[in-house]
Amino acid sequence: MSENISVLGLGLMGSALAGALLSAGHRVTVWNRTPARAEPLAARGAAVAATPGEAVAASPLVIACLLDHASVREVLDGVELRGRVLANLTTGRPAEARESASWATARGADHVSGGIMAVPQMIAGPGALILYSGERAAFDRHEQALAALAEPRWVGADPGMAPLLDLAMLTGMYGQIAGGLAAAALVRSAKYPLTEFTEDLLVPWLNAMAAQQPGWAAAMEAGDHRTGVSNLEINRAGLRNLVTAFAEQGVRADLLLPLQAIVERRVARGLGHEGLSGLVLELEEGA
Amino acid sequence: MSENISVLGLGLMGSALAGALLSAGHRVTVWNRTPARAEPLAARGAAVAATPGEAVAASPLVIACLLDHASVREVLDGVELRGRVLANLTTGRPAEARESASWATARGADHVSGGIMAVPQMIAGPGALILYSGERAAFDRHEQALAALAEPRWVGADPGMAPLLDLAMLTGMYGQIAGGLAAAALVRSAKYPLTEFTEDLLVPWLNAMAAQQPGWAAAMEAGDHRTGVSNLEINRAGLRNLVTAFAEQGVRADLLLPLQAIVERRVARGLGHEGLSGLVLELEEGA
Ligand SMILES: NC(=O)c1ccc[n+]([C@@H]2O[C@H](COP(=O)([O-])OP(=O)(O)OC[C@H]3O[C@@H](n4cnc5c(N)ncnc54)[C@H](OP(=O)(O)O)[C@@H]3O)[C@@H](O)[C@H]2O)c1
Ligand SMILES: NC(=O)c1ccc[n+]([C@@H]2O[C@H](COP(=O)([O-])OP(=O)(O)OC[C@H]3O[C@@H](n4cnc5c(N)ncnc54)[C@H](OP(=O)(O)O)[C@@H]3O)[C@@H](O)[C@H]2O)c1
Repeated sequence: MSENISVLGLGLMGSALAGALLSAGHRVTVWNRTPARAEPLAARGAAVAATPGEAVAASPLVIACLLDHASVREVLDGVELRGRVLANLTTGRPAEARESASWATARGADHVSGGIMAVPQMIAGPGALILYSGERAAFDRHEQALAALAEPRWVGADPGMAPLLDLAMLTGMYGQIAGGLAAAALVRSAKYPLTEFTEDLLVPWLNAMAAQQPGWAAAMEAGDHRTGVSNLEINRAGLRNLVTAFAEQGVRADLLLPLQAIVERRVARGLGHEGLSGLVLELEEGA
Repeated sequence: MSENISVLGLGLMGSALAGALLSAGHRVTVWNRTPARAEPLAARGAAVAATPGEAVAASPLVIACLLDHASVREVLDGVELRGRVLANLTTGRPAEARESASWATARGADHVSGGIMAVPQMIAGPGALILYSGERAAFDRHEQALAALAEPRWVGADPGMAPLLDLAMLTGMYGQIAGGLAAAALVRSAKYPLTEFTEDLLVPWLNAMAAQQPGWAAAMEAGDHRTGVSNLEINRAGLRNLVTAFAEQGVRADLLLPLQAIVERRVARGLGHEGLSGLVLELEEGA
């Protein structure tokens, strides 16, 4: 069903979102601080609003995709939001999203936070995912329209939850990237062809090892860190060996050191018989 | 074709290897320092040697799977190795494997180093992989027999190469584990169900992101770190934001800090327009 939808912010991502809504047959109104960026969308049939207020007045669903939460507040300052659904797909921290939600709610809007797990090129394509949290009824009302952007995933009533899980996914990605960089340095030190190593060995191995993560998650939830496979003592020996190998190969092991440090600390506490899942407790103590 | 194969070391892994060879129909001779561990294999038809020398004399292919390289040398000290293929599947560093290879070669044996990418339960099953390097002709002669243990992958003439790539794969895995631990701490801080997050969101995301690694490897090989997607400046902002979010959620960002440090350092050098692939150079300088 065709809906009226407004998009505030036509950067790389906002333009991709507005374009996907046009492709899906919605009546799209757009606004951007720098008006020129609206032109390609206008050529495809979007209505161009002269002010944020005009854009908000045009549609029950308003999607904001700006630089940060501060710019969203700046743009919407003084605009009548009563009765609107504000789907704020601007990246931010949980605390910022909660603040934006209170601010919008106080102005009579229903606030939904989003975390976009995609680059602009992936919008409306396979694999793109957007996490949503906040006002459930508002999300439900517009879920079908939002599905034109990316697979929508509802993650709860806390407006901070979508951004939090977004950041947690990025955290997992940065760990994987750090591991890949350190592995690459080791492989390059031995002059083995790096793309061959990466395609034939590393990627299939990472995909196989990722399958272990749900088991650790279950152990963390149960608070039962016993293991039948690889305890912390064995991992301590493995990490010491790795760090020595990095030194012997003349490359820096920096990216592995904090993991090694928490493994060493936990074994020193007499928990060497436990598995890797217990390490999460080291990140939660005295932070 | 059935071969005579000896296995030295019947720990968890050595027992799995000997068992796989028996299942494949080979004539297997086993030796272990603690004789009792040979009993289950003897019951399945293995010949039990009283000494390492007797085991080595029984077969042209001798597989060693002991605690470490020092124990291999200790066990084989004074044993006649001339004309044997010593497939040393004991985990070690590249430098140790090269030393063992020289030692064995000086005694007239053909040395092949192995890196086992599997736990004992995976031996002879799908997904198990063993990397081999060293004497190519010796590997070729026994490749079919070795395929009974796990998919054999030849990686070159340097006896240190199989252990090096083994360590590089473990390095990638430890990065992924570190990322998963940090992500878990963040998710737990918000009381979101962790197994749901891990299964539904994190694992598919990690698999999708792993697919980026070959592109970075190609960029490293080409020495061309330009990017059309996500430059170091954007990643610096993302990592700063992440570290702030960890603090706000009351959990430790320790595992992300060395990656952040090299991103900050590289942007400070004026390379903020480059992509993530260039970070590998930071691990190779002044190590
Ligand atoms: N690109 C990605 O891969 C990606 C992925 C996931 C999430 N996101 C998130 O999506 C959001 C937008 O990203 P993007 O890639 O579209 O960024 P971008 O191309 O840099 O666009 C930024 C947008 O914000 C506007 N803006 C900035 N400051 C403003 C202010 N004070 N007042 C009004 N408008 C302001 C810009 O307007 P002007 O045109 O006038 O400068 C532009 O429309 C960000 O929160 C980003 O983190 C992006
Ligand atoms: N288990 C895994 O998941 C795994 C995965 C990949 C690679 N590996 C590698 O495989 C090798 C064996 O591991 P494992 O899991 O089988 O270990 P394990 O169960 O601890 O067995 C160790 C073996 O080494 C023998 N040994 C130790 N010191 C010795 C010495 N000084 N002289 C003679 N024999 C000695 C032990 O004999 P006793 O029975 O007499 O003590 C036993 O046979 C290691 O290099 C390990 O890193 C293991």
